[in-house]
Amino acid sequence: MTAVTGTIRNGVNTEQMFATLDLIKARPELAQFQFRASNRWIDGAHNRSTIKSFYAAGGEDASRSEAFELDAGEPAILLGTDTGPNPAEYLLHALAACLTTTIVYVAAARKVELTSVESTLTGDMDVRGALGVDDEPRNGFERIGVSFRITGNAPAEKLREVVERAKQRSAVYDMVTNGVPVAVQVATD
Amino acid sequence: MTAVTGTIRNGVNTEQMFATLDLIKARPELAQFQFRASNRWIDGAHNRSTIKSFYAAGGEDASRSEAFELDAGEPAILLGTDTGPNPAEYLLHALAACLTTTIVYVAAARKVELTSVESTLTGDMDVRGALGVDDEPRNGFERIGVSFRITGNAPAEKLREVVERAKQRSAVYDMVTNGVPVAVQVATD
Repeated sequence: MTAVTGTIRNGVNTEQMFATLDLIKARPELAQFQFRASNRWIDGAHNRSTIKSFYAAGGEDASRSEAFELDAGEPAILLGTDTGPNPAEYLLHALAACLTTTIVYVAAARKVELTSVESTLTGDMDVRGALGVDDEPRNGFERIGVSFRITGNAPAEKLREVVERAKQRSAVYDMVTNGVPVAVQVATD
Repeated sequence: MTAVTGTIRNGVNTEQMFATLDLIKARPELAQFQFRASNRWIDGAHNRSTIKSFYAAGGEDASRSEAFELDAGEPAILLGTDTGPNPAEYLLHALAACLTTTIVYVAAARKVELTSVESTLTGDMDVRGALGVDDEPRNGFERIGVSFRITGNAPAEKLREVVERAKQRSAVYDMVTNGVPVAVQVATD
């Protein structure tokens, strides 16, 4: 996919990567980030998130000139009009994207040139939980399966080590497998 | 936002909703769903998920004529070129979308007509974890904050009860707060 040009490997500037790691080691306070999303209900199962600002490295990031907008929905069988992927599908995408990017970064750091990273994810859900029909099934996926196919200029064993390391470092894999404390506030006026 | 027309409340067909709940009570095997995403690395932090097929109510769903495509990326400070929201931001969106849809459905079932549902979400992360600089901070968000502003034709107390019930039934809220078992397989050819 990507030629190695100077310090670029797998599309990642490794010189910048190692400089970033050195900087954060020297000044750990720069590692405090805050990401954000704003969501607005439109109609039925249709709602939209706007994503732009974040706090990083000691200040508000100003690199994004435009916001990203993401539409969520539900298919007809779940009472929507299919205005976008549903929230559980977005969670699968978040997990796939994070594992993939972490694989690419870990490979770049380990001098592995990747040629392809593909994955398929499945999430099994008994919707009686989320629909409130039965308290026994949990609301979310009972399990998630991730199948990677990864190729590059390294032996299979080394590619597997890259994936293993990515599991140990992926932000979303950590959150999805271990959970995160969530505080919900409500204003009604 | 949405007028009440016949059985439509908050854009949700409540007649269809109650019929669905009755059907699943009678035939719980129809509640087994599987959602899916396929992801492909493009370059650097840029990867793309394709979301279309899912299994529902005893068979493969055929209602979607086209796939949804979602691009992920990272901002420059995290070594990307901002080709899309980053994976952790997608997770915030998944959580916002699921809580919002669950609020809208619960309100529809309880005869509450909503006029607005807005939320802002924040996720605090010490990126030393995910970057592999330090083993102490976790990789993912240390905490997520969700602030809802919700209005409708019900007293504040009832609107708060709707949000509370949504927390008890949201699929993504369950997954993000409690975690999900994730099995990762790797093929290298």
